[in-house]
Amino acid sequence: MGIVVQKYGGSSVSDATSVKRVAQRIVATRKSGHDVVVVVSAMGDTTDDLIDLANQVSPLPPARELDMLLTAGERISMAVLAMAIGSLGHEARSFTGSQAGVITDAEHGRAKIIDVTPGRIEAALAEGAIAIVAGFQGVSQTTKDITTLGRGGSDTTAVALAAALGADVCEIYTDVDGIFTADPRIVPNARQIPRISYEETLEMAANGAKILHLRCVEYARRNAIPIHVRSSFSAKEGTWVVHADEVATMEQAIISGVAHDRSESKITVVGVPDKVGEAAGIFRALADAQINIDMIVQNVSAATTSLTDISFTLPRSDGQTAMSALARLQDSVGFERLQYDDSVGKVSIVGAGMRSEPGITARFFQALADAGVNIEMISTSEIRISVVVSEAQVDAAVNAAHAAFDLGTDEVQAVVYGGTGR
Amino acid sequence: MGIVVQKYGGSSVSDATSVKRVAQRIVATRKSGHDVVVVVSAMGDTTDDLIDLANQVSPLPPARELDMLLTAGERISMAVLAMAIGSLGHEARSFTGSQAGVITDAEHGRAKIIDVTPGRIEAALAEGAIAIVAGFQGVSQTTKDITTLGRGGSDTTAVALAAALGADVCEIYTDVDGIFTADPRIVPNARQIPRISYEETLEMAANGAKILHLRCVEYARRNAIPIHVRSSFSAKEGTWVVHADEVATMEQAIISGVAHDRSESKITVVGVPDKVGEAAGIFRALADAQINIDMIVQNVSAATTSLTDISFTLPRSDGQTAMSALARLQDSVGFERLQYDDSVGKVSIVGAGMRSEPGITARFFQALADAGVNIEMISTSEIRISVVVSEAQVDAAVNAAHAAFDLGTDEVQAVVYGGTGR
Repeated sequence: MGIVVQKYGGSSVSDATSVKRVAQRIVATRKSGHDVVVVVSAMGDTTDDLIDLANQVSPLPPARELDMLLTAGERISMAVLAMAIGSLGHEARSFTGSQAGVITDAEHGRAKIIDVTPGRIEAALAEGAIAIVAGFQGVSQTTKDITTLGRGGSDTTAVALAAALGADVCEIYTDVDGIFTADPRIVPNARQIPRISYEETLEMAANGAKILHLRCVEYARRNAIPIHVRSSFSAKEGTWVVHADEVATMEQAIISGVAHDRSESKITVVGVPDKVGEAAGIFRALADAQINIDMIVQNVSAATTSLTDISFTLPRSDGQTAMSALARLQDSVGFERLQYDDSVGKVSIVGAGMRSEPGITARFFQALADAGVNIEMISTSEIRISVVVSEAQVDAAVNAAHAAFDLGTDEVQAVVYGGTGR
Repeated sequence: MGIVVQKYGGSSVSDATSVKRVAQRIVATRKSGHDVVVVVSAMGDTTDDLIDLANQVSPLPPARELDMLLTAGERISMAVLAMAIGSLGHEARSFTGSQAGVITDAEHGRAKIIDVTPGRIEAALAEGAIAIVAGFQGVSQTTKDITTLGRGGSDTTAVALAAALGADVCEIYTDVDGIFTADPRIVPNARQIPRISYEETLEMAANGAKILHLRCVEYARRNAIPIHVRSSFSAKEGTWVVHADEVATMEQAIISGVAHDRSESKITVVGVPDKVGEAAGIFRALADAQINIDMIVQNVSAATTSLTDISFTLPRSDGQTAMSALARLQDSVGFERLQYDDSVGKVSIVGAGMRSEPGITARFFQALADAGVNIEMISTSEIRISVVVSEAQVDAAVNAAHAAFDLGTDEVQAVVYGGTGR
């Protein structure tokens, strides 16, 4: 029996009762013969409470100190979880990210893992103990300061440890049963996906699905670590995220799921002179302002005007910064005006099967048209088609796409489709 | 200007408002030209809350994990304090005990400092930053696990850092103005002591005075670190604890203060055969049960009986354990019976001046007699006389002693004489 890495999010360890339930689950895995390494997030609202405290003493807390503060959250949850396991008669030892050998760069608040040296974890396992590791944190290779990994950090910690330890599987426990064909809050008969490829999961995550974070899936894909997303509230099998060739052809639907994202805005630069280098100037200014652009569309210019419009989407939180950066360019570039729209949403269909199946785009767009949904922008990859629509039409668009590709079951899901912040 | 180490207890950093006040005080010290190292305890009730949480998941939390859990408390307070200093325009960097180089043995919950290697603190000071260090914690030299130092641990951290850094002074901030001639809750006109020797402070601490812990004073004495005990709520000079020869003769009262202690019990072993080795057997059994004995009195045996009584005091919390250990000896030692009394109190007068002044004992005992206080046990050192009295008579005994040696002022203290747990 090999090593199993399990990750429990904050909602799975929100209080003493849920910590004890998780402890029983961990002990059951240990009893089945596996070596168990557990990555845990901060309990419930701890992180938010600590951020509130920071804001009470400082309008802009220094990033180094904010990381020091926030890592107290996992320190509490991991020690309490180790105690709960101890009271079930099994030895558990907790380790900070630093003790577990999670080495990062020095970018506080959004550090990247650059190495994992889990010598103390291996020693604990060799002595028969269960190892509990603080998620979301590491130690900077250069400054030796404590860092946090930012969003998705605990999931990434789990996958990185699984890779470094040569684990058989990384189990991500959450408050839903797995990855669904669509958000069940929007599509009541959404179906849980039994197996899905890393590539499709990446596209889902990048386009608004909240179960797994992009960097965690990417880390797993690169290191060939199978991820098993499952509920900490039930013993049911969840969703396996694996290499595409491990998803049996008979299981492979044309479309695996429908993702949506309400977190973006759309900016249109109207009346840009249709000359070489103008678009580059615009996107250089946005890059200098540290803004990540998602979709970009440049209209075909009407031959009579030699002017064009450029539209792009970006995180809504960057909207003001981007508009200011662009306004400063107006004279030099000579565009007519800027339009800002923060009532847009993105709906994407994702599926490896679309590679070999013609007519997917037509079927998707026809379904949207039949539902009265107007398409504002389009973007595609090999295994994904995304459209930007009015935010008010997102639900209708998701349902139309879900039905058009027969993704639903006859059952209505009762669960809430949530996400983990870390 | 040299290095100043300041220690703030949990009551000085109980919430965001008090953290900001402490930050201003630290910055003022920095502005006056000193390098500042701050040792901080956990905020307010944090430690109690964490212990409650531990007890919710485990009846007997493993000591290693309890230390991991409790050290989250200082992690929070030190980061928040660093942020508050940052928002005043000064750079502050927080360090865990481990990062600050506080090396301990592996005795979780009551670790001893065996070395301090403050390289990172010195580097921070050299770069102009204020260093904030978590009190009460260190890292085990052998296991590399996080340890806590137990009661008085934060004060001891501060003094140990002051010694390792060659600081000019270790300032211990608390919620009272300094060390008093007696507890002002009992003696309303108790006087604040401006300067007192290490030796007297040790006797005061060992005999119930709660301002400074024994191990902290002992560490300071051994390393000749002046301690300045003062209030975090005022700018007044507090009490300086220094070498005896730095206490000017003209300042030196015969008696420096009156300490009292209500935390002990008295056990009397009645009718012990007056033979060689019997007492040794009794105290061997108590030592094996890890019980610290304070005062011991053996009655002169009446020649006619060849039986004697042995009385001793011990921490009340060890009472049951001691009685059980002794009861098991009854047959082998052959004593008559055991008496247990937990309604006793100890009152001590402490003063280096009593060395050269005859008649102190007589004056003390006469004052007690005049106040109607019955003396149950007596113990003396070169600079201290202690008596055990009935717990109900402790207040009367303290007041009588205080008045007998003219320790009071004409003013009545309004402050509350409290203590710090760490």
